[in-house]
Amino acid sequence: MPCTGRGGEDDLLKDQQDAYGHLLRHYLRTGEGTEIVERDDGFVDVAGGAKAYFAPHEEWPDHNTKAMKYVRGKVLDVGVGAGRVALHLQSRGHEVWGIDNSPLALEVCHERGLRHTRPLSATQLSSRLGQFDTILMMGNNFGLVGNPRRARWMLRRFKNMTSSDGRILADTRDPAQTDKREHLAYHEFNRRRGRMPGQVRIRVRFKTYATPWFDYLMVSKEELEDILQGTGWYPFRYIDSADSKGMYVAVLEKA
Amino acid sequence: MPCTGRGGEDDLLKDQQDAYGHLLRHYLRTGEGTEIVERDDGFVDVAGGAKAYFAPHEEWPDHNTKAMKYVRGKVLDVGVGAGRVALHLQSRGHEVWGIDNSPLALEVCHERGLRHTRPLSATQLSSRLGQFDTILMMGNNFGLVGNPRRARWMLRRFKNMTSSDGRILADTRDPAQTDKREHLAYHEFNRRRGRMPGQVRIRVRFKTYATPWFDYLMVSKEELEDILQGTGWYPFRYIDSADSKGMYVAVLEKA
Repeated sequence: MPCTGRGGEDDLLKDQQDAYGHLLRHYLRTGEGTEIVERDDGFVDVAGGAKAYFAPHEEWPDHNTKAMKYVRGKVLDVGVGAGRVALHLQSRGHEVWGIDNSPLALEVCHERGLRHTRPLSATQLSSRLGQFDTILMMGNNFGLVGNPRRARWMLRRFKNMTSSDGRILADTRDPAQTDKREHLAYHEFNRRRGRMPGQVRIRVRFKTYATPWFDYLMVSKEELEDILQGTGWYPFRYIDSADSKGMYVAVLEKA
Repeated sequence: MPCTGRGGEDDLLKDQQDAYGHLLRHYLRTGEGTEIVERDDGFVDVAGGAKAYFAPHEEWPDHNTKAMKYVRGKVLDVGVGAGRVALHLQSRGHEVWGIDNSPLALEVCHERGLRHTRPLSATQLSSRLGQFDTILMMGNNFGLVGNPRRARWMLRRFKNMTSSDGRILADTRDPAQTDKREHLAYHEFNRRRGRMPGQVRIRVRFKTYATPWFDYLMVSKEELEDILQGTGWYPFRYIDSADSKGMYVAVLEKA
């Protein structure tokens, strides 16, 4: 039956591409795991690492901790990962839904006790999941909007998925806040090809696993405010990191 | 002048390919630097790291430390790197020559006080450098022989570059001594394409720098003894690592 065979191949490819999920599951089992991020200019580096994705509340970056007081009601965690934030909020009594395009990440969340998960990417979200009071894009996950056009499209969609006093907690960083030559050169490279400076094209690699290439967007406050124009959202508050230059959470409310 | 232009481009490419040297120089300057090694099956991992290349004598792997008592006379360090072993032996009074195909590695060695260096790869060695009493291939650097055919060719050449009681200290590891699924699968992949199991094809990446792909050979004692047949060298002693399974230094003497 060729259909079954094809399904098997597709599953194999999907598994091969779930580098992020394999990393998380490996870390859950062994306490080890190094996430390598490759950028489309050939730059490679080790990311914060699996450890950061599992960090308990007391070890979070300061601006993530501070952002929690803006969370209310029913929560949607976009790119829930290992459930760092979702599990914390669930333990505080929130109903939390975690979505991720990584099947193994959701397996990890489930194993750690997260009650509501759905295998969806950020662009597959719709009001079918119900209405939320808070949408979380923590751990730099505002980046999942990918590019400014898609960001606007997604923010408008989030408007219909949230209550009238709904909020988005958008964690990102100002890409210009660096003195690293290779990053500044990349921003320039992006400008030349008509992209936003912080619109990084990357893939995650772990062992022999590699995700497809994807866009991840990092923005300054000014760039964020440009994007928000006409979406129905405005920056109600900024929570700056005291530890890491340029990192901040924007608390977005409905205009 | 096109010739100059071409020279400039070649220099740029050469610099772009000196990932290993850039890593070492970066570490010398900042105390930081992560070496990423990519294998031709897509496996990526973080290597021991720049720190290991600069480790002082008291922090060496045990079998490296023990191997030092077999060093005598004038020393050639093949793949000298940051000069970890060469500088130690120089401080103990040996005349030590360090060769490396990485220009920046030699710059690092020079800055750290190594007196004799030459920008040569292992295959470019000849008796023009004079006669040596000990040839060092430490830090897993027996791997630089690349493949069994080239290993034999190189060992014969080393015979003519050494005194009658000359020695080679060949540091390597038995690739079969692992239970990691991805490594065992790679060994099988190698066997299927007619290579030795531990003949890994890799490149070093650091930031946007990447070396060309190269073969690096790891062998069991049995495989080493096969290679030594007819080269004029025999394993006088094996120094096994007590800490890391399968790692050992072979002290080779003339038959």
